[in-house]
Amino acid sequence: MSLTIYRKAHFNAAHRLYRKDWSDEKNDEVFGKCNNPNYHGHNYQLIVGITGEIDKETGYLIDIKILKQIIKEEVEDALDHKNLNLDVPEFKELNPTMENIAVVIWNKLRKKIDPKYDISVKLFETPRNFATYTG
Amino acid sequence: MSLTIYRKAHFNAAHRLYRKDWSDEKNDEVFGKCNNPNYHGHNYQLIVGITGEIDKETGYLIDIKILKQIIKEEVEDALDHKNLNLDVPEFKELNPTMENIAVVIWNKLRKKIDPKYDISVKLFETPRNFATYTG
Amino acid sequence: MSLTIYRKAHFNAAHRLYRKDWSDEKNDEVFGKCNNPNYHGHNYQLIVGITGEIDKETGYLIDIKILKQIIKEEVEDALDHKNLNLDVPEFKELNPTMENIAVVIWNKLRKKIDPKYDISVKLFETPRNFATYTG
Amino acid sequence: MSLTIYRKAHFNAAHRLYRKDWSDEKNDEVFGKCNNPNYHGHNYQLIVGITGEIDKETGYLIDIKILKQIIKEEVEDALDHKNLNLDVPEFKELNPTMENIAVVIWNKLRKKIDPKYDISVKLFETPRNFATYTG
Amino acid sequence: MSLTIYRKAHFNAAHRLYRKDWSDEKNDEVFGKCNNPNYHGHNYQLIVGITGEIDKETGYLIDIKILKQIIKEEVEDALDHKNLNLDVPEFKELNPTMENIAVVIWNKLRKKIDPKYDISVKLFETPRNFATYTG
Amino acid sequence: MSLTIYRKAHFNAAHRLYRKDWSDEKNDEVFGKCNNPNYHGHNYQLIVGITGEIDKETGYLIDIKILKQIIKEEVEDALDHKNLNLDVPEFKELNPTMENIAVVIWNKLRKKIDPKYDISVKLFETPRNFATYTG
Repeated sequence: MSLTIYRKAHFNAAHRLYRKDWSDEKNDEVFGKCNNPNYHGHNYQLIVGITGEIDKETGYLIDIKILKQIIKEEVEDALDHKNLNLDVPEFKELNPTMENIAVVIWNKLRKKIDPKYDISVKLFETPRNFATYTG
Repeated sequence: MSLTIYRKAHFNAAHRLYRKDWSDEKNDEVFGKCNNPNYHGHNYQLIVGITGEIDKETGYLIDIKILKQIIKEEVEDALDHKNLNLDVPEFKELNPTMENIAVVIWNKLRKKIDPKYDISVKLFETPRNFATYTG
Repeated sequence: MSLTIYRKAHFNAAHRLYRKDWSDEKNDEVFGKCNNPNYHGHNYQLIVGITGEIDKETGYLIDIKILKQIIKEEVEDALDHKNLNLDVPEFKELNPTMENIAVVIWNKLRKKIDPKYDISVKLFETPRNFATYTG
Repeated sequence: MSLTIYRKAHFNAAHRLYRKDWSDEKNDEVFGKCNNPNYHGHNYQLIVGITGEIDKETGYLIDIKILKQIIKEEVEDALDHKNLNLDVPEFKELNPTMENIAVVIWNKLRKKIDPKYDISVKLFETPRNFATYTG
Repeated sequence: MSLTIYRKAHFNAAHRLYRKDWSDEKNDEVFGKCNNPNYHGHNYQLIVGITGEIDKETGYLIDIKILKQIIKEEVEDALDHKNLNLDVPEFKELNPTMENIAVVIWNKLRKKIDPKYDISVKLFETPRNFATYTG
Repeated sequence: MSLTIYRKAHFNAAHRLYRKDWSDEKNDEVFGKCNNPNYHGHNYQLIVGITGEIDKETGYLIDIKILKQIIKEEVEDALDHKNLNLDVPEFKELNPTMENIAVVIWNKLRKKIDPKYDISVKLFETPRNFATYTG
């Protein structure tokens, strides 16, 4: 038996893909226009999945109001209307690719959600490019 | 090798989340505005997945016209334009949360679909809240 | 010159289409399964358009935070998780068709928004059925 | 008779809403979190409409391949993966609100498209906030 | 006062853009890969708008069940799973561009819908290319 | 640990479902209106998933620009604006059902993508009918 519930959220942020220890030429070669030193940005869309068992009493797997609040505090308040490179501690030394953002979000949620549940994160950087991470 | 085909369907229904054996205060505390005694409602969207092997002769995993008809009879005719609490026998004693609705739909489909196929159900209660159940 | 800004919102509600002064037979004939006496429901999606001129100082036509707040107070707080027939005064004697709901929402917004702006309301009852009203 | 054809496009950009001649306090009061000095960003989605008459010979109102190319050169090449405030000349002294971006795009397209056609621009800053401009 | 209701529909069809009286070279030059002599195809999505006044008795502008049936008979039965060039009489001598298809659909609906209503047709050839026609 | 990145693409094609070795009656019985001898068509939407590990140096699982180019060459150039039955060698003797198209695309991609990555293919024939194949 496998039951998962999902909650969508979103945040709008600026970022730049590059490595400080690489030359401009190498950053341009690898990251192309994503390496604009003045940043660009995205409407990130996030889908968090929680897998577990139904609570027979309530019929809920997890109270989605509580999940919504955890996502707000851990993800939206931390990332929305932010410059990921400059404003978010996790990306001070980590390139904010969609892959790394998905992993960072998963790690933040993992600390706040009961270990009896499995967690999945789907992160859309654009409607055509997205990533999933399941820990 | 894993091949799955999917078919979308939808139904519009009213429901109320509560337990008859709880006080109004406890129902309000747990289910919040979903406990409106006059009901509220949703456009539920359903995606049924069928996993199996391709029939070499037809190139079909399953004839989607037949799957569409089973979904119509088992789900749409039973739930569309209904009050889940009052009109649907499965929810007479079962809280119609999206989790329980997903399980009920899966059980109804399981009885009608050849056991050689695996079944998955994804149920959207809103565009932001949804559930999957795979039995 | 015509500039319009739009804001999306949504609410989930139950309703029933019928006239108290008609027989059950006539209500069934005209409103079909929408006349379920136990109600059914929808995820209504709303798009409010505001037409006017750009404020040269801010670059805003209207502050969308203020518009969002007006929509929350006038529409979402009034209609979300409600039974339109039983819980909403405007529909005590008015059939809650999507046409009438669109007109009711427009009238509520018109009272709260500066008359220098034109207002449009687009209301989705389902992804396939919707209405627009421009006063 | 009114016939319009539409073409969708998109660009991802960073921006900040503020006025250089205002204090930080006033910018925060008016523009809120959109005034992050480190910028934030969006996946802007654009829909360009062209109104005119069908060319009886081809059955086209306008060759959409040509329209696509004009949008690429005038909008996507100019705005995609850019910081609107720092990289785009039109916003050096103009606040890059969605209203102003829509007007700037319309003006750029107007210069490149035969005056026998009317032009409309619909610009989504997010899926919930968007603007239309028709000149 | 302006009230419009909309109904979505869809049909899947093959077509080829070309003129019989042009050389292959000219057809290729003007219509590019849309001139494949073996045809290609689309999932066309249609939105029909009907503008008029609310019937005070029912609260309907028009009974959407009747509109749905007219669209089925006039559009879906005529165009779905068809080759527009070979199977549909209206395109025997008319190039099935999205502009011409929109006009043909509008003309077919106009004959079946009470002249007290205005009609609009929005036709998506792809999610990025679409047309509107209002007669 | 499981990380997957996804890239969307699309192609528009004509096809016909039938077996040359069956009578017209049997083809009609099994494939219904999909057996139109003049073909019909679809806007196919494709989502390719690549599963693997993050490259610590770049923060990429795979460079999505390279994946996009492989999809263009192997899928879009081969299938877009084509008649699947007549123009595409893989379907000369294979019925172009969505199941078979998904398998053909997966096989084409598998040859071009480093075996250290797992591949999944999700293919939408319409917004309501789709298939996934994971090899």
